[in-house]
Amino acid sequence: MQIHLDGFHPGDPHVAPADAGALPHGATPPGEVDVLIVGCGPAGLTLAAQLARFPDIRTAIVEQKDGPLVLGQADGIACRTMEMFEAFGFAERVMKEACWINEVTFWKPDEAKPGAIVRHGRVRDVEEGLSEFPHVVLNQARVHDFYLETMRHAPTRLEPYYARRFTGLAYGADGFVAARFEGASGAETIRTRYLVGCDGARSAVRQAIGRRLVGDSANQAWGVMDVLAVTDFPDIRFKSAVQSAAGNLLVIPREGGYLVRLYVEMDKLGEDERVAGRGITVEKLIETARRILSPYTLEVKEVAWWSVYEIGQRICDKYDDVPAGEARQPRVFIAGDACHTHSPKAGQGMNFSMQDTFNLGWKLVATLRGQARAELLATYSAERQAVAQELIDFDREWARMFSDPAAAAGQGGVDPKAFQTYFERHLRFTAGMGTHYQRSLIRNDDAHQHLAAGFTVGTRFHSAPVVRLADAKPVELGHAGKADGRWRLYAFAGAGDPARRDAGIHALCRFLDEATDSPLRRFTPPGADPDAVLDLRAVFQQHHRDLAIEAMPALLLPRKGRHGLIDYEKIFCAEPVGGADIFARRGIDRAEGALVVARPDQYIADVLPLGAHGRLAAFFAGFMLAPAG
Amino acid sequence: MQIHLDGFHPGDPHVAPADAGALPHGATPPGEVDVLIVGCGPAGLTLAAQLARFPDIRTAIVEQKDGPLVLGQADGIACRTMEMFEAFGFAERVMKEACWINEVTFWKPDEAKPGAIVRHGRVRDVEEGLSEFPHVVLNQARVHDFYLETMRHAPTRLEPYYARRFTGLAYGADGFVAARFEGASGAETIRTRYLVGCDGARSAVRQAIGRRLVGDSANQAWGVMDVLAVTDFPDIRFKSAVQSAAGNLLVIPREGGYLVRLYVEMDKLGEDERVAGRGITVEKLIETARRILSPYTLEVKEVAWWSVYEIGQRICDKYDDVPAGEARQPRVFIAGDACHTHSPKAGQGMNFSMQDTFNLGWKLVATLRGQARAELLATYSAERQAVAQELIDFDREWARMFSDPAAAAGQGGVDPKAFQTYFERHLRFTAGMGTHYQRSLIRNDDAHQHLAAGFTVGTRFHSAPVVRLADAKPVELGHAGKADGRWRLYAFAGAGDPARRDAGIHALCRFLDEATDSPLRRFTPPGADPDAVLDLRAVFQQHHRDLAIEAMPALLLPRKGRHGLIDYEKIFCAEPVGGADIFARRGIDRAEGALVVARPDQYIADVLPLGAHGRLAAFFAGFMLAPAG
Repeated sequence: MQIHLDGFHPGDPHVAPADAGALPHGATPPGEVDVLIVGCGPAGLTLAAQLARFPDIRTAIVEQKDGPLVLGQADGIACRTMEMFEAFGFAERVMKEACWINEVTFWKPDEAKPGAIVRHGRVRDVEEGLSEFPHVVLNQARVHDFYLETMRHAPTRLEPYYARRFTGLAYGADGFVAARFEGASGAETIRTRYLVGCDGARSAVRQAIGRRLVGDSANQAWGVMDVLAVTDFPDIRFKSAVQSAAGNLLVIPREGGYLVRLYVEMDKLGEDERVAGRGITVEKLIETARRILSPYTLEVKEVAWWSVYEIGQRICDKYDDVPAGEARQPRVFIAGDACHTHSPKAGQGMNFSMQDTFNLGWKLVATLRGQARAELLATYSAERQAVAQELIDFDREWARMFSDPAAAAGQGGVDPKAFQTYFERHLRFTAGMGTHYQRSLIRNDDAHQHLAAGFTVGTRFHSAPVVRLADAKPVELGHAGKADGRWRLYAFAGAGDPARRDAGIHALCRFLDEATDSPLRRFTPPGADPDAVLDLRAVFQQHHRDLAIEAMPALLLPRKGRHGLIDYEKIFCAEPVGGADIFARRGIDRAEGALVVARPDQYIADVLPLGAHGRLAAFFAGFMLAPAG
Repeated sequence: MQIHLDGFHPGDPHVAPADAGALPHGATPPGEVDVLIVGCGPAGLTLAAQLARFPDIRTAIVEQKDGPLVLGQADGIACRTMEMFEAFGFAERVMKEACWINEVTFWKPDEAKPGAIVRHGRVRDVEEGLSEFPHVVLNQARVHDFYLETMRHAPTRLEPYYARRFTGLAYGADGFVAARFEGASGAETIRTRYLVGCDGARSAVRQAIGRRLVGDSANQAWGVMDVLAVTDFPDIRFKSAVQSAAGNLLVIPREGGYLVRLYVEMDKLGEDERVAGRGITVEKLIETARRILSPYTLEVKEVAWWSVYEIGQRICDKYDDVPAGEARQPRVFIAGDACHTHSPKAGQGMNFSMQDTFNLGWKLVATLRGQARAELLATYSAERQAVAQELIDFDREWARMFSDPAAAAGQGGVDPKAFQTYFERHLRFTAGMGTHYQRSLIRNDDAHQHLAAGFTVGTRFHSAPVVRLADAKPVELGHAGKADGRWRLYAFAGAGDPARRDAGIHALCRFLDEATDSPLRRFTPPGADPDAVLDLRAVFQQHHRDLAIEAMPALLLPRKGRHGLIDYEKIFCAEPVGGADIFARRGIDRAEGALVVARPDQYIADVLPLGAHGRLAAFFAGFMLAPAG
């Protein structure tokens, strides 16, 4: 972490100095804001934490409940989500507290012993090299805690307004939306430039803009319980998918070494029947789990939480308030469960919800600051709805396979082997790596993909280890990508660099520094640090002991802050750290090098030659706006 | 981390439930305690944090200053100290905030260009595999913060009493010591079973027990300053030892990417002369640094902190109040700078001080609880004084070499090459790995050292990666060693294990479980968890997929807590993680296996055959006491 740029400050470096100009937190919500978030779930908090670092943007977040969540329902945290937590600055805390899912084991009916189950397979949960982070399980309430702390420590000192129910909205002629709430002290109205409904599956904001969730139900009831139990089932600390003659069950070990979550298949439901009518008790859940796990014993000592639900996948056709075909820009958005719901066992609901607003956050910032054209905002629904639809399709198939009667091959059900194969094929998807955005004004074509085959345009920037030139520290290159609204230009030098002054890195720096069509020159506000909008990082193929930092272009040693201090964290070396170097790992062209453009949400917008200055300029000119004046 | 053993509790798992029986924190200190700590420096806080987790021990810590440290002087944190921080639970936070020292570079006068300096060498700061932690630099005040938070989150909710100056002590006939303090509201007296003076180089506790620091001074003044500066010196983010014709200088990069500490050689002092008399200003420090770094420029933008000091190494002959030759048990101890002072540049003062009280803490706990004979307490001074004397000897030599006039070979000074060689040889020492305790009642002989050559008896347990059997999680074995006062028995299985029921791990477990002379049976209090005093961990040579957890001895799956839940974190597999397995890394006999006994402070007390049950029993019987009743 970089601190003390504008002078030495003692104390906890995670607590940013409060900004005097930020909207203060009062007893009641402010009358007017730029962004109003409805709902303190994972989607709402991701957006609030993202906006909290910008004191020039007036943000409020309102929640219907009386206070923070204590006991969460969701628990699985995908690798991709961990990468995002790293950008928010608390990944290492989640790593420490959470339960790591390292392997998945598979159980089926024992053909030799009717009524018993037997292990028939085990696979790594996350394939080698998929991410620098593990797949973990942690109480959703703790994820909320980390976001709330991030907000509290940000320059805006952002805090939610609790105990206020959204009751409706009205569009004003002045471009504002008036949102109405009902609280303990009566009705309140907040005027906002943008309203974001993160208010869950029964979203009132969604209803207010006339959108609805459509989808289907598998007519299958499931139970879920977090228990402290004693068992001789040997895989109780593994994620285990158990198919038995008595039904199906999924074991998810939980944080702390003792707690475990069991998803238990319960009754088939009739057409349009809701599970609530069945009167399923926790005793029945436990009894069913015991039958499924037989001949192993299960002695439940304490139930920390339990619930029953029916499987279903539903989605909205659009995530904003602009009817299809209309050209105006959106003012109201929905995110998370408000626009897509999933079966819990695919472990996707919470993860997808957070990625929704990580996608939306930087777009709101850029638009509100006048740094980008308002067309940018339409890409939120376009991008997120498409990938959610893909997820729903996967999810439906997955739930169907999981709920099918357990059966050995040939008995009409899903073959256990086929089940495992499908599971393995989709582990990448459940790791959160299924997202692949399509061509848009913020995602270029794949014309130069061959220069860096491992950085697929439209997917997230896949980090790899490098060594920092200035201090020889081994670091993850992708961790340069913080949730700060900035674009990253990762320049991978060709073999001839840095000796070549007329091409490669030097030429790119000269272009960015000097050319009139340089996006860095055009779009960086006057007086701001040179990396305030576009953050350039360079990776060389030489060993750090073979490169002279004093010969580097000035743009890679930028002078920043009120003292004009040198930022030494822009230049890296691709020497191998625990295996192949980043050029090998990501298939980067060693002769030509490559420039990888990563968006503020870490997705790759373009891969292009280092010398394609015109293409780079045109890309940013397509949606960015030069500072006024 | 393991949580929820005694039932599910939401919230931050780092905050232990407050213990109703613990000594409450009041407006004034309590009248009587078991342990009274004087001084809130690194030594005092390490001890307080250690004791804070034991609500049955009444602890108070008193500090002369008005509140917590804001700006610290010490900054280097050795690998060994990081290992201890891991035991206290905050290593990952230090890793994140701190500046990592990865390499050291060496500069000397340029023979070709008089008055200029040139780089002549660079070495890794920490040799490969020396520790799983890096050598880092972080403001001492932040280290204090982490300890204070650890205390606040412990069951005792321990807080310091500030603004009280220790003025003297009196021994009572009842075994208590009465310590007197002077505070804002007058004189206070605290009766205590044990008094620990962690009150710095001018320790009043030391004076009260009639001990003194003896040693010498190099009659050399040095300046130190933390600055935000702009320079073209290329190694400003490396630890750099600069010898120039204009004097010597040490560069220590600091946390946050911009701050840097410079140690600058200043005036030679006369015999017995103190540096204060020289009137050295910060301007003079800067000017000298600029001359030394020439031809590179140094433009200081802000000085965060600076000081001048004279080099000296001093030490007490004994760290407690028992005169040499007397047999009574100590009641007063001194630790940290109170009994040894060092030149800052060896980076040892703070690190050594914390290891002092990490050594003392568990001994006080065991004695106060009646779990160990009082003779245990005499080992504190014996062990720590001996290793400090070794450090002082090293330190004196190091300071002498550093202050010697810079010189190319043959000009009478220290040869730069010899300097670097000496530096490299002692990097292990500065990493905190120089400590090697000698034979005592808590450190057995080396008779079976050959069974595990890499676990040297008397040195710290050197962690290595393993895989946990129950959930296939890759973990550091040594991180089982928490600062909880427990002994660890690391049992490394021979190749035949676990099939052999009559020998190896099974036989060891049976002995520990059943034998009348089993230290586990003898010394574990009735009703306590089986691992409350001796924490057994087993490491097998098989891959985790080839071992059946259901076939393991019950002692390796102990039932714990009020629910009798199974602890699944006792069994590990030695499959290779990023290289060789732990048997190869630590030279463990693959045929016979080995049992490594680690003390609560992580130092190795014995290496013995798995079947040497009698030796194991005799070792613990030598100092442990069975519970009364």
